[in-house]
Amino acid sequence: MLHKLQKKSLVEQVSSQIQEMIKDGVWQIGDRLPNEAELMEQFGVSRNTVREAIRALVHVGLLEVKQGDGTFVLATSELSAVLQKRIQSAAVLEILEVRHALDREAVSLACLRRTEEDLNQMVKYRDQCLQFTQDNNLEKFVEADWQLHQTIAAASYNPLLIDMYSHLFEEIQISITSTTEMNDANGAGHNDLILAIQNQDAASAVHCVDMYISQFKQIVLPKKGE
Amino acid sequence: MLHKLQKKSLVEQVSSQIQEMIKDGVWQIGDRLPNEAELMEQFGVSRNTVREAIRALVHVGLLEVKQGDGTFVLATSELSAVLQKRIQSAAVLEILEVRHALDREAVSLACLRRTEEDLNQMVKYRDQCLQFTQDNNLEKFVEADWQLHQTIAAASYNPLLIDMYSHLFEEIQISITSTTEMNDANGAGHNDLILAIQNQDAASAVHCVDMYISQFKQIVLPKKGE
Repeated sequence: MLHKLQKKSLVEQVSSQIQEMIKDGVWQIGDRLPNEAELMEQFGVSRNTVREAIRALVHVGLLEVKQGDGTFVLATSELSAVLQKRIQSAAVLEILEVRHALDREAVSLACLRRTEEDLNQMVKYRDQCLQFTQDNNLEKFVEADWQLHQTIAAASYNPLLIDMYSHLFEEIQISITSTTEMNDANGAGHNDLILAIQNQDAASAVHCVDMYISQFKQIVLPKKGE
Repeated sequence: MLHKLQKKSLVEQVSSQIQEMIKDGVWQIGDRLPNEAELMEQFGVSRNTVREAIRALVHVGLLEVKQGDGTFVLATSELSAVLQKRIQSAAVLEILEVRHALDREAVSLACLRRTEEDLNQMVKYRDQCLQFTQDNNLEKFVEADWQLHQTIAAASYNPLLIDMYSHLFEEIQISITSTTEMNDANGAGHNDLILAIQNQDAASAVHCVDMYISQFKQIVLPKKGE
């Protein structure tokens, strides 16, 4: 719960608490924060302190002030916000090369560390992908496909890798998947990858990654014009 | 050069300019910034604006205020600052796994894209490593070894990968190299890797990465106690 703050560097403490509350999902992306008066009351600090804390978080990219409308949540963590800003100035090929690197490592580690529960989750999202392909529901397919990739990354049990993965690649995954044809080839690719992870066959799993990254490159490179 | 600012959101503009000057090396890590009065004069803004801009950059981790002493540069970019903060809470094995991923991709891309100038730089730092091994100068060896690894990463010509590489791994590279014995085995490893990159032999280059990451893990894992 919120607790009144006593020590110096109040701005730091208020901004840390706001960050924690965003991280914990009390305020989610797109949510409007309480107004200044309410935040002053909640944290037991002056208007200037609230304003400075909010400005610091705006600067980091966590919050956005819309004049006359309020303060809104833009990102869930500093790392997320900064990586997203950094990604804006990166070329698609750059991002895909870094993704290739992290995906190869993620599936290799997933082969070593995946649990039965991880495999069940992967199968669940694979089945959803198949279902949404049959339903011709691209939006839902894109969502399930990204969940599947995140579930595989999570099975690496490497928190740093997982953090970077989810912050770096969500946008590109969604934009690429949204432009692909939904077809049975996706389903076959998913099957091979999950099977390789189930069999703890890292060479085959890495081969699956090589295949889809190469497909991604074919999709994006002609459009890049760089 | 500095130019007076006219539009609103002055705090953002001042903090952006300070960031640019740090990025451009006008103020380097460890440097003290001019005092408030000088910054007010330079940017043509009020004391409150200068204070807020500095506080925002302190929050990001770019600057540090030492009471009674001044404001000092802590990091060269937001990405650097945030990744360094994130790294603090990561286990050594986590970092090495992410490093393994990025190194494999970096050397593969370097095999495709390295120029003669890149190869000359690599040879220069390899020779320095040999020289400092003979001189038994560990501090200089560690520095040259990290320069060599950064030169190889730079030959990937992937700015995102290079950025992440230099911000994520400097500390761990230096701490590991500092605890290793300097010996001819390092020199042989460097030779094999540079030769593979020169010959554009990605499989051999990746094998070299596998070897030294595995050595790093052997060095750090017994100490980890996790």
